[in-house]
Amino acid sequence: MRNTASAISEFGSDAAEADDEASQVLHRLAGRSVVSILDLTREELLALFATASRLRNAGPRPLRLLAGTIVLTAFFEPSTRTRLSFESAAHRLGGAVLSVADMRTTSLEKGESLSDTVVMFESYADVIVLRHPDVQALHDIRAKGISIPVINGGNGIDEHPTQAMADWYALVNWRPALAGECPGATDRISLCVVGTPRRMRSLRSFLLAAAVHFPAALRAVTVVSDEPEPLDADLVALLDKQRIAYRCTDDFDTVAGEADVIYQNALAPADGRYQPYGPPVRIDAQTPLKPSAVVMHPLARRTELGTDLDATAHNLYFRQAAGAVPVRQALLLAVTGRLSSELGSARES
Amino acid sequence: MRNTASAISEFGSDAAEADDEASQVLHRLAGRSVVSILDLTREELLALFATASRLRNAGPRPLRLLAGTIVLTAFFEPSTRTRLSFESAAHRLGGAVLSVADMRTTSLEKGESLSDTVVMFESYADVIVLRHPDVQALHDIRAKGISIPVINGGNGIDEHPTQAMADWYALVNWRPALAGECPGATDRISLCVVGTPRRMRSLRSFLLAAAVHFPAALRAVTVVSDEPEPLDADLVALLDKQRIAYRCTDDFDTVAGEADVIYQNALAPADGRYQPYGPPVRIDAQTPLKPSAVVMHPLARRTELGTDLDATAHNLYFRQAAGAVPVRQALLLAVTGRLSSELGSARES
Amino acid sequence: MRNTASAISEFGSDAAEADDEASQVLHRLAGRSVVSILDLTREELLALFATASRLRNAGPRPLRLLAGTIVLTAFFEPSTRTRLSFESAAHRLGGAVLSVADMRTTSLEKGESLSDTVVMFESYADVIVLRHPDVQALHDIRAKGISIPVINGGNGIDEHPTQAMADWYALVNWRPALAGECPGATDRISLCVVGTPRRMRSLRSFLLAAAVHFPAALRAVTVVSDEPEPLDADLVALLDKQRIAYRCTDDFDTVAGEADVIYQNALAPADGRYQPYGPPVRIDAQTPLKPSAVVMHPLARRTELGTDLDATAHNLYFRQAAGAVPVRQALLLAVTGRLSSELGSARES
Repeated sequence: MRNTASAISEFGSDAAEADDEASQVLHRLAGRSVVSILDLTREELLALFATASRLRNAGPRPLRLLAGTIVLTAFFEPSTRTRLSFESAAHRLGGAVLSVADMRTTSLEKGESLSDTVVMFESYADVIVLRHPDVQALHDIRAKGISIPVINGGNGIDEHPTQAMADWYALVNWRPALAGECPGATDRISLCVVGTPRRMRSLRSFLLAAAVHFPAALRAVTVVSDEPEPLDADLVALLDKQRIAYRCTDDFDTVAGEADVIYQNALAPADGRYQPYGPPVRIDAQTPLKPSAVVMHPLARRTELGTDLDATAHNLYFRQAAGAVPVRQALLLAVTGRLSSELGSARES
Repeated sequence: MRNTASAISEFGSDAAEADDEASQVLHRLAGRSVVSILDLTREELLALFATASRLRNAGPRPLRLLAGTIVLTAFFEPSTRTRLSFESAAHRLGGAVLSVADMRTTSLEKGESLSDTVVMFESYADVIVLRHPDVQALHDIRAKGISIPVINGGNGIDEHPTQAMADWYALVNWRPALAGECPGATDRISLCVVGTPRRMRSLRSFLLAAAVHFPAALRAVTVVSDEPEPLDADLVALLDKQRIAYRCTDDFDTVAGEADVIYQNALAPADGRYQPYGPPVRIDAQTPLKPSAVVMHPLARRTELGTDLDATAHNLYFRQAAGAVPVRQALLLAVTGRLSSELGSARES
Repeated sequence: MRNTASAISEFGSDAAEADDEASQVLHRLAGRSVVSILDLTREELLALFATASRLRNAGPRPLRLLAGTIVLTAFFEPSTRTRLSFESAAHRLGGAVLSVADMRTTSLEKGESLSDTVVMFESYADVIVLRHPDVQALHDIRAKGISIPVINGGNGIDEHPTQAMADWYALVNWRPALAGECPGATDRISLCVVGTPRRMRSLRSFLLAAAVHFPAALRAVTVVSDEPEPLDADLVALLDKQRIAYRCTDDFDTVAGEADVIYQNALAPADGRYQPYGPPVRIDAQTPLKPSAVVMHPLARRTELGTDLDATAHNLYFRQAAGAVPVRQALLLAVTGRLSSELGSARES
């Protein structure tokens, strides 16, 4: 049995050549906005992961790659976790942060169009992380043109692409073979998603990434939801197109023991707040998991995920969380164009 | 016809000699508070504009002139736009920021006197940007003495001097002759103000600056308001003293076509929030403007200013907004005394 | 009579040898959390004070000792004063700040366990300043283990140890003999505490420090409260163990004239907010104080402390407040381990 907790080498941390390659690839992202996890290619995603590992291994020494750069976090829905992880990522690279923890509470701007707000942000910052309850908002901003990169920090029920990056970064670190073009039969995973991707943006971005970027990693996908159609048409079309076997069920007990990876979520954004959502599935030490299975969760959790799993090898969710900052560091470096030439020299200084 | 959108040279950006002169002039502002736009002389204002242009042209290279300096933004009324523009200005110069986005929500300090709050701020920061609903608050602070400079970020219906700086910076960049001692007859502007300066601090500071610092730039002033006396006694006295021709009317349609510059505002602070205010004037592409006229607005706008003007040469409001950060950079440098000797070396480094 | 306002030398600011000694002592604090004022020894406390004075005397020159370090301030009760003083301390040393001004307003994390929240914080920051309404929260965090230092910014009615540090720093600067092993009879103070330490964490931490770290400095302690038992069992036990004479009374007028030091507080945290509490004692210029007496107050004040004392030699509370930042600078340096080797070189650079 694979001991999931003892992975020693980290994805992308080994080869200096690979590092330079990653920088080359990420150079393409300079100036680009990231609204969907599908805005990146698989190659770009893996290059981000490699860079994240490099940054993580760089240790506590200050890296000043974002010095002189202002990252604005504008949250039209409050969120401590996502906001702070981006701000931490910026600070760890010497960037400055402008923070609007809850845009809804501002009085003057209440009646302002998002378009005008974005014009304002362009004057103030070099990159924007935006969370917005409206699915369309970020797509509109990109369509109208914006002079600085904007990163989607969660847009309604649509997507949460940087969460999906952290998710797949954790998965690929757990089982590096999943990043390969053709994972072997024993490496491919049976994936169980607990929740309703159609309403939960983290699950949705995770599955979009799975279907488009890592289809070969999947043996099969099971979606556990008490909704009759938990997947939206786009997801269904993509899974079909990629010939990924999937099924939907409301009976977690029957399928729990088959999965290699279980991704759980129980909250969905609705009306600008999070609402508990999904079937009353609790995963804990009593759940009959495969001994080698890992459990993922975007956190924060309430009762749906038992703390008695925290100290077990099933716990991948804390490593998911721990990867959130380095992945976002890599992304900020890429879209601001601060990565290509400077990370090499930073390593030496 | 003057093409308002194609101004190439920026005010104050040309001559190195002028730069040194500006630094000399601004040296006088070190340690000084700015509560009113009349706290500055015309010469100081123009030196700020010259410095703002220099900073803007300095490009993306990090300037660290405020390194080691803490700028505290304390907003007793919330405001995203003004707060972030000051914080962006501080960060662009390497300064640190302490932010109190809404002082009213703090519980302990609710009953505290502003005087005690200011003593606290003096321990924590090197310069304060303060917004307060009470007209008198900032005047009191200065009268009682404060050991670090305080900048008025808007005090009730009184003033918003840094908005007026950004406004006149935009005007002077649009038509540099307005900054001269004796603008020619074809350069002088017919100014139309839509709103009630007596209740709208942005308009009020703008007109105070006009009357005291740029009287020769004005051919005439028209105030459009449905209030019988839209100007307060101080403004009336100043306009009279400076022999500036002005009139008040509630009929925008009649006067719209005469103006070279229209400054519109439709919100006034009242009871610690913004309230729509003023006559129901909407300016948009249907408004019979002079072809060469420019429209100003402090933003945020609601429906009173049409987005169909955005892509036209009438749009000066986006340039107003874009100048907000460099003007505030210049002011922060001036009042902290970080300008005189260091900007020269910063340009070379 | 001692002129309390004219103390010239500052505690710990004189001897370079003492400086090195302080660094040695504080080295022990690296990586440690501070939940109670009793987590420090008297020697460590005095070393912090010496370092605070050194930092204060370092002047406006930027010290970058915390460069690359992220300080997270997480306030589950809002507080401008404590939050900003820590953030100012971090910025003055070149540290970065992640700020959660009011954790209660976040929506997703509302149902999250503090334990999970702390795991998140560990990924984002290098040191946490935490204020929490629950007395037990910080003790639990430490008991469960946390990989980065956490500093108590006030936990319910339990403690506010960094306030007590600022308090004793002010006292020891006022009368340096109090820091000695055996203060002379004329140096020892008669201390009067106005308020209910059992419910007021600032008073409680102050008295804990008095009893354990500075017992020889006290001639006697008087507690003025209209509660029959204003001291909790722990405080009573400590005062008894240290053989400190104390008494409780509800009659301030009788005892006001005897005290050398009066420490007043009139607010207690309850239900996550501050509530006025304690006897209706007002101290002002009319109070028959000993001419040499000093008055302390953690601020903010309402009417219980007259502003007519501000300009008198009785006013120690402004110096208490002014010491809050350097003491917290010293503490941040100590627990992050950034002090030992670097302050020496910082002085030279």
